Amino acid sequence: AVQTPYYLIDKSSLLRNLEKISWLRDASGVKCLLALKCFATWSVFDFMAEHMDGSTSSSLYEVRLGREKFPGETHAYSVAYADHEIAEVLAHADKVIFNSIGQLTKFKDVSQGHLRGLRVNPGVSTSEFDLADPARPFSRLGEHDPAQIAAVADQISGLMFHNNCENDSFERFDEMLRLIEDHFGAIIHQMDWISLGGGIHFTGADYPLEKLAQRLAQFAQRFGVQVYLEPGEAAITGAATLEVTVLDTMHNGKNLAIVDSSIEAHLLDLLIYREPAKLAPNTGAHEWMICGKSCLAGDIFGEFRFDAPLKAGDRLSFQDAAGYTMVKKNWFNGVKMPSIAIRELDGTIRLVRDFNYDDFAAALS
Amino acid sequence: AVQTPYYLIDKSSLLRNLEKISWLRDASGVKCLLALKCFATWSVFDFMAEHMDGSTSSSLYEVRLGREKFPGETHAYSVAYADHEIAEVLAHADKVIFNSIGQLTKFKDVSQGHLRGLRVNPGVSTSEFDLADPARPFSRLGEHDPAQIAAVADQISGLMFHNNCENDSFERFDEMLRLIEDHFGAIIHQMDWISLGGGIHFTGADYPLEKLAQRLAQFAQRFGVQVYLEPGEAAITGAATLEVTVLDTMHNGKNLAIVDSSIEAHLLDLLIYREPAKLAPNTGAHEWMICGKSCLAGDIFGEFRFDAPLKAGDRLSFQDAAGYTMVKKNWFNGVKMPSIAIRELDGTIRLVRDFNYDDFAAALS
Repeated sequence: AVQTPYYLIDKSSLLRNLEKISWLRDASGVKCLLALKCFATWSVFDFMAEHMDGSTSSSLYEVRLGREKFPGETHAYSVAYADHEIAEVLAHADKVIFNSIGQLTKFKDVSQGHLRGLRVNPGVSTSEFDLADPARPFSRLGEHDPAQIAAVADQISGLMFHNNCENDSFERFDEMLRLIEDHFGAIIHQMDWISLGGGIHFTGADYPLEKLAQRLAQFAQRFGVQVYLEPGEAAITGAATLEVTVLDTMHNGKNLAIVDSSIEAHLLDLLIYREPAKLAPNTGAHEWMICGKSCLAGDIFGEFRFDAPLKAGDRLSFQDAAGYTMVKKNWFNGVKMPSIAIRELDGTIRLVRDFNYDDFAAALS
Repeated sequence: AVQTPYYLIDKSSLLRNLEKISWLRDASGVKCLLALKCFATWSVFDFMAEHMDGSTSSSLYEVRLGREKFPGETHAYSVAYADHEIAEVLAHADKVIFNSIGQLTKFKDVSQGHLRGLRVNPGVSTSEFDLADPARPFSRLGEHDPAQIAAVADQISGLMFHNNCENDSFERFDEMLRLIEDHFGAIIHQMDWISLGGGIHFTGADYPLEKLAQRLAQFAQRFGVQVYLEPGEAAITGAATLEVTVLDTMHNGKNLAIVDSSIEAHLLDLLIYREPAKLAPNTGAHEWMICGKSCLAGDIFGEFRFDAPLKAGDRLSFQDAAGYTMVKKNWFNGVKMPSIAIRELDGTIRLVRDFNYDDFAAALS
């Protein structure tokens, strides 16, 4: 058995998402690229690539990982590339999408002959969090002005809009796409391809996938473009757990259980967005606060219900731990990084990465 | 020249803190151990060890790093140790401090013959942030009840109180120490050593160091104990910068400059505590928002003033970037991790660690 803590990627759960992606591709003609910023555990890239068209990136290292590990197309995007990065970015990318007209112009000569795109910020979005809202005031994410974009349209063959964020409402997606059509339609007509980014929660249980397929096909036909989606969370939602063990229990006004993990080190977004972890079934007569083992006072996974009191040695499994977790893990407090394991379709579990003291010491100098 | 981004540790600035630590040790008799959770860049440990007594830790990996790299005493503490860790922890530690009576009891036999301590939570603290407040409601950090602690006093030779947090008020420190004396004095009398933890900002410019020395010496004498402090931030405050370069500028209601770094990946606490970075001198007629290059909409270092408009290629230097930065850096977005460089006392700069694509790819699997 693998020693806790470890992230456990479940291929059967992953496959449920991938089959919806396949269906959407077939029904609508869109191409789907995995957003590596959300999930970059490359041991399952070959498996995912059977149902996806490639990967998209947010940095030089991600585009290279996509090129080397994820079969299919490789999109390059970054909020800003450095001069010393651009040649290697272009070498690894099928398309390069610049965040600004400034970057497009700066790298105009070196990127000649490559397929180029520009990120456009439509000024509307769906994020519940200001922190994650690309349409927040003064946003640096993409160009806003249709006239300025039109002036460089001859240098690019596509646009990227990325303004959805965990959006589970088709109606809201449809409404925002209409705003994009109204505001940027003339430029979209000049393009060969349009990426609508990620953040559309179309693999969710009740998402009206047929409506989405129709809408995307209609958009593609109206403007004569190849449409791309860049799912991150939608591709891997529910596809991994974080497996931990209770190390100690205490009672200080509440029942406290300390586990061999840490939200700051292993599930960072819980701390950044002040949200609790997910634990199922979360029923029973006994309420416990599950705490991390870092020194941070607020290293708390949440309060959950159990059928019996917890004790040292009990195993817990935090749900939905694939997205933005492994890519953000860090060595805070020197807490052992969770290993990474894969549950194959036949149920066998395979350890693919373990971290040890030497990894910790080498992370510094 | 070292390519940005990089953390630059300045030994002259570090030395200013270390000389205050040396003075405090001489004047008060306290021993000072570096808290590795805050700063674990071991290339300067030998230099720091000339002015400190050793290191303290919050995990197995940290105690081993302290033993292998930081000359002097090595304290082991953790919110919870796993069964499979404890033998190695004991092998690397001069003292082991348990967080709970439960852990002390569990490891009573295996730790027989080792110097043992217990963390005590006095229920008062100085943190401005609930997240970082060890005295927050239902805190798991240490034991609270004098009667329960007294019952195991014969198993331990010391106690650890860690309830200060960036506390720059000697009066507040003094007042809380008096509460500790009043509440736990009887048990403290039975001990050989007391750690008062970290979080006392005694290397700050206006801190009344003499008063602190007197107070600590008085405490040590009254109870007949060796006092330890475990400075983290106080040891390295102001001793490093994060060096970055402007990659692009945009204008979207405000002047925006995008640099080759990210708060989430490289200065994580700015994001967690929603605080701006420090940039000096922060004067001049031109105000700019400095943004990171990750995809996070809120990846913003802050708004600062400059003498002239910023442009691509400009170099910026974020101040006070030693504490809780390098130990929390991560690969979010695949943004290149800052290298680590040291400015020697003679002004020469030495690169001690660079990170590359292979490090990124090996962080996953």
